[in-house]
Amino acid sequence: MEKKIITISREFGSGGRTIGRAVAEKLGIPFYDKELVDQIALESGFAPQFVEENGEHAPGKSFFSYAFAHQGVPGIMNGLSTADFLWNIQCNVILQLAEKGPCVIVGRNADYILKDRKDCLHVYIHADIDYRANRIVTRYGESDKSPENRLQEKDKRRRVNYQHYTGRSWGTAQNYDLCLSSSTLGEEACVDIIVKCATGK
Amino acid sequence: MEKKIITISREFGSGGRTIGRAVAEKLGIPFYDKELVDQIALESGFAPQFVEENGEHAPGKSFFSYAFAHQGVPGIMNGLSTADFLWNIQCNVILQLAEKGPCVIVGRNADYILKDRKDCLHVYIHADIDYRANRIVTRYGESDKSPENRLQEKDKRRRVNYQHYTGRSWGTAQNYDLCLSSSTLGEEACVDIIVKCATGK
Repeated sequence: MEKKIITISREFGSGGRTIGRAVAEKLGIPFYDKELVDQIALESGFAPQFVEENGEHAPGKSFFSYAFAHQGVPGIMNGLSTADFLWNIQCNVILQLAEKGPCVIVGRNADYILKDRKDCLHVYIHADIDYRANRIVTRYGESDKSPENRLQEKDKRRRVNYQHYTGRSWGTAQNYDLCLSSSTLGEEACVDIIVKCATGK
Repeated sequence: MEKKIITISREFGSGGRTIGRAVAEKLGIPFYDKELVDQIALESGFAPQFVEENGEHAPGKSFFSYAFAHQGVPGIMNGLSTADFLWNIQCNVILQLAEKGPCVIVGRNADYILKDRKDCLHVYIHADIDYRANRIVTRYGESDKSPENRLQEKDKRRRVNYQHYTGRSWGTAQNYDLCLSSSTLGEEACVDIIVKCATGK
């Protein structure tokens, strides 16, 4: 069966976003990454930067300290924490996008949110620590923290967020149709394999 | 880089063994499954059936009750439990086979045993529970336990054995270069993808 919707979950620094974009280009279908953030921001009233920084991160106290970033829609959160409010909107946006037609969706637990659709290919991209460390320094520059610490921190936040909202363990093969190591296989091969699996060709 | 040695870890009933055999045939390289059991049996003095039944299973009391299956080589176990003794031989046999040249090795924690070699492609095959349940009934027949119970029991034993001897979690994507759902992708596509990843073509 042809898979029309491709979700890509990825370790930070693994190149999953770049691979997702290349898959969307090859298949000539929309790629939702930044657009997803903008849509969630629009529907939530939060600033895009806030959604970007917090949408895949651990729910916790830090969310409350940002609650005032929520602009102009007081009263509609119905007692939900900011994190839960954002999660509900994220689910709705992703479900609606999937209804629109074939696409590639990167991150934001889309594999779980769309788990009941049969026309999805769920992909997980990971890579070894050295590959990821080199990649984030090249792409995002140095910071006062070591690349390894930055990776560990981001990994932990994604893992906690995923577990909290899905009840699943992050990086478990059984949650995906396809898991690929970009550091071993190379990004180009990852793109080819995903396209093959999605199209059946 | 071309990957010369392919290890295939698999959920019971996922078709991983069949996929591994087809990969070996396509590449024209040896396939070690039963041969591995025979070699471990030869080196350990245990009966092949005992090695087959216990080599991937949880270490535990049941091993001791089988200790008398160990024929003719008293004294060389050096105080090891039967399970640990078998594990040491299994490691040696797999390391030696890998030295011989390109091959496909199914099961027996070969992904972990060969983790320090750079010329390996480590693959994990899984499938959804309905697919596996149908497959084991078709291939191995009915038994007095439900297929779901048989799967759960076997999954648990492999998981415990893997965790005990490797310190890793069974089914974690990061332990493999490639994880494939045979129930979603189909066995033929799995074979093609593994061959592509191993040869780089």
